Amino acid sequence: MLHSYRRDQLQRRAGRGENSQVDAMYQVVPGNLPAAREKQSKEVKPLICTILLGLLLVIAAVVAWCYYTASLKKLNSFKIDQLELYKDGFFIKNTANMVLFEMGFKSAPIDLESCFQDEAGNEVNCTKSGEEKVDFFVKAFKPKDTITCYNIEWKTVILDSVVEHCMHWADGHWYGGAETSTQHWPIKISGVMDPKPYVTGDVYSIRDGFGGILERYWISSKSVAVRVNDSVPLHIGWNSSDKEAFCLHARYKDSPFQPTTGQQPFVELSYQVCIGSDLKIIHRYMAKKHFRKPEITPSEFMFRYPKWSTWALFKTEVNQDKVLRYAEKIKKYQFNFSHIEIDDQYSSSYGEFNFDPVKFPNASELLQKLRDDGFQVTLWVHPFVNYNSPSFIKGVENSYFVMDPSGRFPAFVEWWNGIAAVLDFTNPETTDWFQKKLEYLRSKYGIVSFKFDAGETSYLPAKFSTHKPLSDPSLFSKLYAKIAASYCMLAEVRVGYHTQNLPCFVRMIDRDSVWGYELGLKSLIPTVLTMGILGYPFILPDMIGGNVYPNKTDGLDEIPDRELYIRWLELSAFLPAMQFSIPPWLYDEEVLKIAHKFTQLRESLVMPLMLRLAEETTKTGNPIIRPLWWIAPNDKVAQKVDTQFLIGDYLMVAPILEKGKEARDIYLPDGKWQSFNGDLFDKTPNLLTDFAVDLDEVAYFIRMI
Amino acid sequence: MLHSYRRDQLQRRAGRGENSQVDAMYQVVPGNLPAAREKQSKEVKPLICTILLGLLLVIAAVVAWCYYTASLKKLNSFKIDQLELYKDGFFIKNTANMVLFEMGFKSAPIDLESCFQDEAGNEVNCTKSGEEKVDFFVKAFKPKDTITCYNIEWKTVILDSVVEHCMHWADGHWYGGAETSTQHWPIKISGVMDPKPYVTGDVYSIRDGFGGILERYWISSKSVAVRVNDSVPLHIGWNSSDKEAFCLHARYKDSPFQPTTGQQPFVELSYQVCIGSDLKIIHRYMAKKHFRKPEITPSEFMFRYPKWSTWALFKTEVNQDKVLRYAEKIKKYQFNFSHIEIDDQYSSSYGEFNFDPVKFPNASELLQKLRDDGFQVTLWVHPFVNYNSPSFIKGVENSYFVMDPSGRFPAFVEWWNGIAAVLDFTNPETTDWFQKKLEYLRSKYGIVSFKFDAGETSYLPAKFSTHKPLSDPSLFSKLYAKIAASYCMLAEVRVGYHTQNLPCFVRMIDRDSVWGYELGLKSLIPTVLTMGILGYPFILPDMIGGNVYPNKTDGLDEIPDRELYIRWLELSAFLPAMQFSIPPWLYDEEVLKIAHKFTQLRESLVMPLMLRLAEETTKTGNPIIRPLWWIAPNDKVAQKVDTQFLIGDYLMVAPILEKGKEARDIYLPDGKWQSFNGDLFDKTPNLLTDFAVDLDEVAYFIRMI
Repeated sequence: MLHSYRRDQLQRRAGRGENSQVDAMYQVVPGNLPAAREKQSKEVKPLICTILLGLLLVIAAVVAWCYYTASLKKLNSFKIDQLELYKDGFFIKNTANMVLFEMGFKSAPIDLESCFQDEAGNEVNCTKSGEEKVDFFVKAFKPKDTITCYNIEWKTVILDSVVEHCMHWADGHWYGGAETSTQHWPIKISGVMDPKPYVTGDVYSIRDGFGGILERYWISSKSVAVRVNDSVPLHIGWNSSDKEAFCLHARYKDSPFQPTTGQQPFVELSYQVCIGSDLKIIHRYMAKKHFRKPEITPSEFMFRYPKWSTWALFKTEVNQDKVLRYAEKIKKYQFNFSHIEIDDQYSSSYGEFNFDPVKFPNASELLQKLRDDGFQVTLWVHPFVNYNSPSFIKGVENSYFVMDPSGRFPAFVEWWNGIAAVLDFTNPETTDWFQKKLEYLRSKYGIVSFKFDAGETSYLPAKFSTHKPLSDPSLFSKLYAKIAASYCMLAEVRVGYHTQNLPCFVRMIDRDSVWGYELGLKSLIPTVLTMGILGYPFILPDMIGGNVYPNKTDGLDEIPDRELYIRWLELSAFLPAMQFSIPPWLYDEEVLKIAHKFTQLRESLVMPLMLRLAEETTKTGNPIIRPLWWIAPNDKVAQKVDTQFLIGDYLMVAPILEKGKEARDIYLPDGKWQSFNGDLFDKTPNLLTDFAVDLDEVAYFIRMI
Repeated sequence: MLHSYRRDQLQRRAGRGENSQVDAMYQVVPGNLPAAREKQSKEVKPLICTILLGLLLVIAAVVAWCYYTASLKKLNSFKIDQLELYKDGFFIKNTANMVLFEMGFKSAPIDLESCFQDEAGNEVNCTKSGEEKVDFFVKAFKPKDTITCYNIEWKTVILDSVVEHCMHWADGHWYGGAETSTQHWPIKISGVMDPKPYVTGDVYSIRDGFGGILERYWISSKSVAVRVNDSVPLHIGWNSSDKEAFCLHARYKDSPFQPTTGQQPFVELSYQVCIGSDLKIIHRYMAKKHFRKPEITPSEFMFRYPKWSTWALFKTEVNQDKVLRYAEKIKKYQFNFSHIEIDDQYSSSYGEFNFDPVKFPNASELLQKLRDDGFQVTLWVHPFVNYNSPSFIKGVENSYFVMDPSGRFPAFVEWWNGIAAVLDFTNPETTDWFQKKLEYLRSKYGIVSFKFDAGETSYLPAKFSTHKPLSDPSLFSKLYAKIAASYCMLAEVRVGYHTQNLPCFVRMIDRDSVWGYELGLKSLIPTVLTMGILGYPFILPDMIGGNVYPNKTDGLDEIPDRELYIRWLELSAFLPAMQFSIPPWLYDEEVLKIAHKFTQLRESLVMPLMLRLAEETTKTGNPIIRPLWWIAPNDKVAQKVDTQFLIGDYLMVAPILEKGKEARDIYLPDGKWQSFNGDLFDKTPNLLTDFAVDLDEVAYFIRMI
């Protein structure tokens, strides 16, 4: 081609000199047009150009229109009953179009173009999130006229996935969740918390963790309830300054949750959101559906009379003589008693579960004497076998312990009494060995029951394996609580996870001898209310006055502050059980008098009601101790009250919880109320300000229908 | 511009119709030449074109030349003395230009353009490998006239790096490295082995691992020696079908090696390659430079007389009565003895290091009786404390044990006697406790020394932490061996890592009662030669006839095969120590006679020489037992002989190692040799075929200068 071009150029230069200017202005490039084009008439060309241009305009318009329609489609949402699904999350509105609940898909948006809705409009299925395959669905159903529920399920198909959905927490007050060290009612979240495993823990030692009593259940004052499915490897995180503040976070990576054996290790975040016509209705529906009711009630003794523990008084210095003298004093000062509980360090090493012959030279004689005096006796037990206990050797030989991840060696943990292996209750042989130890104590000494201490997952090794794998580590707490169930009536546990059906008293974690919300007197009502809402009605408050732990006590370190002790005692008298350790006679005559007054008031006033409510809860699952909103579900003030509570629906208690106070504000919800000193209040709802309550008084009100 | 073009085209079409064909053939593109160009005369144009074309050709030529030169530079290599460095590795050639050694940079090539050579040409530094920064250097130096060394160092600056250099293994025969279960001389590698940590291990239980005696040192028959620096997190891998077969692999990731505290965690692969004028010269130079010489010799007793162990005979069924009767029989059958060693399970639990009062009701009396009869007694010890030993509790309380990675809990291991914690000898308090235990045995019972068993890193937990961090886990073996050193003279250890200076006998790992190369009779000479080349001259072969472990025995399981026992005994008589457990009197008169013959021959013939060589090695570091090439370094046949050995330079031993044979081939290297039955051989080198050796004979030859 170059050749013919050059020849042609030379021809032009030689023969047609007059064209040289044009040649210089325009560089010539070889073309290759078909010969036929030359035959087109010159007049047709402009016409064709115009037609082509017109055609182009039409195509452009069509494309623009298509694009516009597609964009419109992209912006679309789905409506499933009252739920509106967007790519970034969903809203649930009430019939008045007010937002009740808002959830954001924080880990990844859903691709709405991959979604399909069924004909009835009750279900939407989506298959993609960005470029990733997911299996997402929302399904609405109405179990009752007053209740609508939505099942939300997000299943991944990629390893190491993380799914995070965050609730708009500021919408209403929230209740439920878990026991915490600083307990508020309603729940307060503050600061930023990275998602952490939602598993049982000892909040006495890990103050910012989740407690030993924990359920995957939250309800809000807007009558919305959320229950996360058991199959979810659930972590909870929050950011109080963010709108989407409270996050449900599912992952297996760097998590103690493990996929169930034989199951694909794909993360799933699935939960149910239900809305109801009011807070009480929605809670009762959810509790009925998701919690099992207690089968029977614990012993009437435990409700009626105080339990006397050796712990706060003697700590690990307990011995035969001290127990005997303690019992003598209880009788001497004419107190009633459910039972005496002999706590930590009656044994020579942790794992023996028997009396130390040095500290208890004649345990049989002691127990016989106590029985003769009418005392029932319980013993403190735990799931640990310390390395220096003879049981440790037996445990290793028989694989009774939680093992390291290899499954070859027992894994150690550190608890408050040293280094130990943990009994692996997924192994029936371990449970059998442990129960035989307890049976021996029962048959040899007549021990009637036990205080089952610990059991939280925070006392499991950081990495471990068990005889039967634990997909959710909190199932360890459940197994431990189930062992306690054989000794209920007078037993106590301090863990609760899916174990509402067990007829055991559940103890809140050890209290410090302080006034405040962090494990102090003020935390009692929020904790009791939370436990009740989580389905645990048989609540054992910790020892009256707290445990007097060093540096964790308001006042002197020997016994609790006198006033704190009195107020604590007064509050305890109205709770499902009452627990003494530091005895009232360590103070003075007045304290003794107040103690007698309130133990008697408990028996005469509280017990008839309490025992009826305990019986009732085996049928309804309703809490015995109830928040004010139980009788005023839409009362915005009642929703926030955390210093008053109801015993059933008709007895309201408003104890003094502040140091140096002999008066307090008391909120009376709608109804006719008669105060403890006989005054009638029927202009309600109403806030009684500076209502006088003397040191030897608790304000309580009877609701007259 | 489009406008002027169209106008021009129309002009041409209208006024010069004859040009339309040309126009159709050539599409016209607008140019923008300056108006001045129009004034150039038509004659100048071709000239300018020609000049421009010429210029273009010149530029092209220059570019091509530059590119060619650059390519040449890229292909270039550096020459550092006899080492040629290429981007993919290096060669070392001898003066006759024959390749002696070849190393490939398997992990990444070096960027030769980043290299600089010093003026003298002895050193090359490079800074890049691909796009990554590295610090690489090669430095040559001549420590002696006959020796040239090269220091090679490859330092990375990126975390989790891996550096791998692979040797061309087929070049020559290689010796050194580590004890292995199937031991060959020279080393045989087969199949593919992914790089694994080059650390001490128990090759009795992990048959394809590296043994308890291990150094980072290899020499080849081409007079090349390689010593890898201690700072390298060394792993060794191989691929026998590859040219670059034997790989030095440095990494921290997924490795028990850890960066030294305070050191950047960057991987370094550094080593020294030295070439010498012959194999013996290069080995002696390297040994002198890299191994410390034994400071003194162990007890003469241990060389001269057999040691008698309870192990293979009684196993863990040992007791006071059995030991006493064993000692009586040794005397009755008129055998000499260095000492009696009481092995495994003299104690009630592992960690007590004391006599079990049930099995040894009167240990003091036993020891007194043995002493009265002239016996010295040693005891078996180990670095383990089993979970069920009372010492376990003491150890946990005092942090005597190797801990889990958190450093909070002792880490368990499983050894052949159960589950145990491992004494952490990086903790001076642990060492002190252990030594006090041994001192007690010494002072209370008159125990003279100990058999220090185990000590390999394979008995450390998979993940662990120690009081003082161990950057190289084999340093644990070193620490353990150092403890043994206080009890040397009659002590034995079975680990060796940088501990050639200790005056202890080093025992090869337990042998099976089999004929073959895998821990059998045939493995003895390769193992002894390897230990010698690694700098350990005081070698304790395992028990005569092997340990008679069930299913690991050629013949019946009760005592070793008679012929195997005899041949093993005969070979042992020529090694630095002799160890009985299964006694000759369990067989018959002939075996007893052979045993007496060889224990006597040992004392009369071997000992004068052996003791002189032992003394000599404290000055030279030379092995006592030497390979044939020690006196014939360039003899290609001698380099491969693994069934004969030299005691010093003048006594050569050629035992029978095959079942049913009473003759064997014997290679005589250059020299004048007189056989054990008096025949003289001076036509050498020579292979004597089918040389007769009766059942009660060992062929040995004296080299007459």
